[in-house]
Amino acid sequence: MILDKVENQKDVKSLSIEEMEALAQESRKLIIDKVNTISGHMGPNLGMVEMTIALHNVFNSPTDKFIFDVSHQCYTHKIITGRKDGYLNPENYFKYTGYTAPEECKDDLFKVGHTSTSVSLACGVAKARDLKGEKYNVIAIIGDGSLSGGEALEGLNNAAVLNSNIIIIINDNEMSIAENHGGLYDNLKTLRDTNGQAECNLFKALGFEYLYLEEGNNVERLIETFKKVKDTNCPTVVHIHTLKGKGLELAEKNKEFGHYMMPNTAYIDIKTLKNPDDDFQAVTLDFIREKVKTDKNAIVVNAGTPGVFRFSKDIREEFGKQYTDVGIAEEHAVAYSSALAKSGAKPILNVMSSFIQRTYDQLSQDLCLNNSPLMILIYWGGISGADATHLCTFDISMMSNIPNLVYLEPTTKEEHIAMMEYAYNQNEHPVAIRVPSCELVSDGIKDDTDYSILNKYKVTQKGQKVSIIGLGSFYHLGVEVAKYLKQELNIDATLINPRFITGVDKELLDSLKSNHDIVITLENGELNGGFGEKITRFYGNSDMKVLNYGSFKEFTDRVPLDVLFERYRLKKELIKQDVERLIK
Amino acid sequence: MILDKVENQKDVKSLSIEEMEALAQESRKLIIDKVNTISGHMGPNLGMVEMTIALHNVFNSPTDKFIFDVSHQCYTHKIITGRKDGYLNPENYFKYTGYTAPEECKDDLFKVGHTSTSVSLACGVAKARDLKGEKYNVIAIIGDGSLSGGEALEGLNNAAVLNSNIIIIINDNEMSIAENHGGLYDNLKTLRDTNGQAECNLFKALGFEYLYLEEGNNVERLIETFKKVKDTNCPTVVHIHTLKGKGLELAEKNKEFGHYMMPNTAYIDIKTLKNPDDDFQAVTLDFIREKVKTDKNAIVVNAGTPGVFRFSKDIREEFGKQYTDVGIAEEHAVAYSSALAKSGAKPILNVMSSFIQRTYDQLSQDLCLNNSPLMILIYWGGISGADATHLCTFDISMMSNIPNLVYLEPTTKEEHIAMMEYAYNQNEHPVAIRVPSCELVSDGIKDDTDYSILNKYKVTQKGQKVSIIGLGSFYHLGVEVAKYLKQELNIDATLINPRFITGVDKELLDSLKSNHDIVITLENGELNGGFGEKITRFYGNSDMKVLNYGSFKEFTDRVPLDVLFERYRLKKELIKQDVERLIK
Repeated sequence: MILDKVENQKDVKSLSIEEMEALAQESRKLIIDKVNTISGHMGPNLGMVEMTIALHNVFNSPTDKFIFDVSHQCYTHKIITGRKDGYLNPENYFKYTGYTAPEECKDDLFKVGHTSTSVSLACGVAKARDLKGEKYNVIAIIGDGSLSGGEALEGLNNAAVLNSNIIIIINDNEMSIAENHGGLYDNLKTLRDTNGQAECNLFKALGFEYLYLEEGNNVERLIETFKKVKDTNCPTVVHIHTLKGKGLELAEKNKEFGHYMMPNTAYIDIKTLKNPDDDFQAVTLDFIREKVKTDKNAIVVNAGTPGVFRFSKDIREEFGKQYTDVGIAEEHAVAYSSALAKSGAKPILNVMSSFIQRTYDQLSQDLCLNNSPLMILIYWGGISGADATHLCTFDISMMSNIPNLVYLEPTTKEEHIAMMEYAYNQNEHPVAIRVPSCELVSDGIKDDTDYSILNKYKVTQKGQKVSIIGLGSFYHLGVEVAKYLKQELNIDATLINPRFITGVDKELLDSLKSNHDIVITLENGELNGGFGEKITRFYGNSDMKVLNYGSFKEFTDRVPLDVLFERYRLKKELIKQDVERLIK
Repeated sequence: MILDKVENQKDVKSLSIEEMEALAQESRKLIIDKVNTISGHMGPNLGMVEMTIALHNVFNSPTDKFIFDVSHQCYTHKIITGRKDGYLNPENYFKYTGYTAPEECKDDLFKVGHTSTSVSLACGVAKARDLKGEKYNVIAIIGDGSLSGGEALEGLNNAAVLNSNIIIIINDNEMSIAENHGGLYDNLKTLRDTNGQAECNLFKALGFEYLYLEEGNNVERLIETFKKVKDTNCPTVVHIHTLKGKGLELAEKNKEFGHYMMPNTAYIDIKTLKNPDDDFQAVTLDFIREKVKTDKNAIVVNAGTPGVFRFSKDIREEFGKQYTDVGIAEEHAVAYSSALAKSGAKPILNVMSSFIQRTYDQLSQDLCLNNSPLMILIYWGGISGADATHLCTFDISMMSNIPNLVYLEPTTKEEHIAMMEYAYNQNEHPVAIRVPSCELVSDGIKDDTDYSILNKYKVTQKGQKVSIIGLGSFYHLGVEVAKYLKQELNIDATLINPRFITGVDKELLDSLKSNHDIVITLENGELNGGFGEKITRFYGNSDMKVLNYGSFKEFTDRVPLDVLFERYRLKKELIKQDVERLIK
């Protein structure tokens, strides 16, 4: 094995072309085996293998600086830079993150997982170098759809006038997670079709030097190309055409499926795969499809992650012109959808919790200040054991303090449907719904609540002494806690399903004062700036004791859920202890 | 007066070219007189007069839709669309906002003041039109520097593939607020220099049809040009060269000064103008200049609003290569500065409170997740009587719930200097400082606090029963309240200057329990998600009563400060009433 000779990137420099080609095949096999065992980004990494080897052959990391975007393209980089044990040995498969991580290695400059960041970061690295009078290459690697994000475009605009060494490598695999959208991708196609010779060139228009390489999976050509741009002193774009998924038949043929693969899916017949039909997402998708079918003004919007919402190719075709994927461009997605709503269309905007973070100002200014009656669905919100770059714990804290937004979280299938119907049909407010990330709960009773009467909480069990307000997916934890308090402390707790994240039911909270001493709030997200603190503030001038449960203000990194729930005391036994301490 | 004949835009259609030219001169005079009386955006509007008249001559608003960006370019539009009374009669000068406002008029589609929004919004309007099978023109007017914002670039990328009528008018006045920065502005220059004929054309590269008009202040040429693009069925960019400040000598000669003018400054000698040297901003600027002078790794960053920070042309020249204005591109500014800090430079990022809103995800991912030791200065934060689009009340709520950020607010000059020294010299955390928006307070005593010991509040007056925690600029209100409580209720209140917005001093708060019944928090910003709620949550399980004071979750629109302070009970008399009610 060539890999035996490669302890770190220095060893790549002495390899022959043939050896590097062999190294590429070995690395590719490791990536396929690992991803097929523990899941991960398959296609993007398989397309980048040769490029990464060539980069390390030509440049000298960590003196020269590589900044990966999206950093899920970094697997070969990790294999080469001293971390092959995480790929060779299944026992170590979880040792390293799937993203660049400075704590692992000096060759990783930034911890990043959200897209479109590398060019801006590289500008800062290059400018610091120039200020300090140092000499090295700064290389931003961007691609796989992340070029269309506003931060990347702002970065390109500024990189072009840096007047110094900055090398931007466009990994053009013709794809985002799904197909690409937008004029710049048409320009990339024109450039590919003309072998980089087309006069109308986005990058040249911005002022970059520009090189094109068609054979983006050919180590020898890649090395020649990188040698041409090494140590240059002007902003340079190297546009490289690669094959997403290269080396794994399924990932090559079905690039979208191959983008991120679950365990044991590398060699299956994908026709046999089915999405679950008994979870909150299935209910959501059914609702959306029905609206598109029955209302020609319905339009489904997302920003480059259709798979998160199970908008398969078939379903996208079914939506037809009632579907917009804006590409990775969340800010545009919010403003565009706000204008659609204001103009009499019926947009349904779909965003993953972690990525709604990219749109605070658009939510505030383009949407809420204009009170456009937009329906937003937020997916995957909640405490999770994910990588630090993809946490979904902050959406409530980020969104719910913006004026005019109505943010709802249902507890059952029936409530979810009723909330979606309300959000879709009303014409008064921007309304977001947090699609619960727990198992589907259904009581079979149609919810006929009038959600246009804002901020009315629902008492589901009347009791005394202790009142439990369980938000959305954590309502069910509230039920457990209530039972446990009865069993252990003989307390008949009141149980409340607030439904509205963004408002306080003052009348109800006031009424609790008469026969309750303690209010417990449970929310599946950050406590700071979240739901529970508003309840506590309401009771600030009263004798009511309030206990808030949710996650701390911290970036957790692949911490198992049960560890986090213990840490945050999100367990019936721990909550009971806290209650006991107070009533003594 | 031609204006006598123009009640609304329909009347513009029957005017001759000569009459429209006269109308332009009359409108220009109204704008100059009004801005010179009550302040406002002078230069951008003076450059847009002819274009706006030509737009209304050719298109039919509100059937055809105009979307202005930045909407501070809309004064002539307001004069023409039935609102001339707000410009003719000084008594009505405050009747209309300086931005588009749908509540004023059907010809204003969106309430917007933050930049870079029009193209995205126009895409939504156009798509809604197409879904509904309607026919009209959608026209986004963008310029005056706002093209470089990520949202605008995301919008352009998507507008290019809309495959339908959308007309994007680039008002190219060669300026942002100050000079422009970035490769796209170089391309605009190339296009101007070649009368739009250069092969390398950013807009064509994206897929737009493209027209150029050099004579952007010539009504006749403008009308010819707009007629060419009216009712087209493909995305079209019309690039128009205008003169910012046209018609007012001072604004033409000094475009940056003329961008936004204060009362009675239209005809002055600007050499006689001086910035105050006795406020918090002066102290801040002195600090920055000193660092740049003495540390070659210091670098000052801002995003297109140097005037807000008093970075005059002279000072920018003094900074030299230790200065970056990224243009209107706040996201890039944060990521770029984070990378500078991570790479050993000493960046000082300057942002106005309202515009830091554009960077939630960059603060979270590029900065805080990476714990880059960046120093950020936030200006103008606090409750204000501003237009709804430029409120500065949300920065604490937006920023302070992001993990790892240290956010400080000083109360005195000496504290501010000590905090800036700490933020600048430390290497542990991203540290933001909220430059107080109150009058300068100085006690002459050097602050030798070690701010690296996080979240230590300072007790400035020891008392009992009531404790007042006054944050930053509202500490001084706390002093007033303490005096008043003594005077009226004979309470010797404890007074606390928390200094740290982002953390709770648990030890101190715990210690207050022994001899205090009430804690009051005062903060100059939104209560929801803000500083005080964390204090309240801390005391949730105790007998302490907590009263939180700050602003409500609302977009206020030019509401005078004293009305707001009354509404939010931010007055010593009202706070005393609340305390009295509790201790009875």
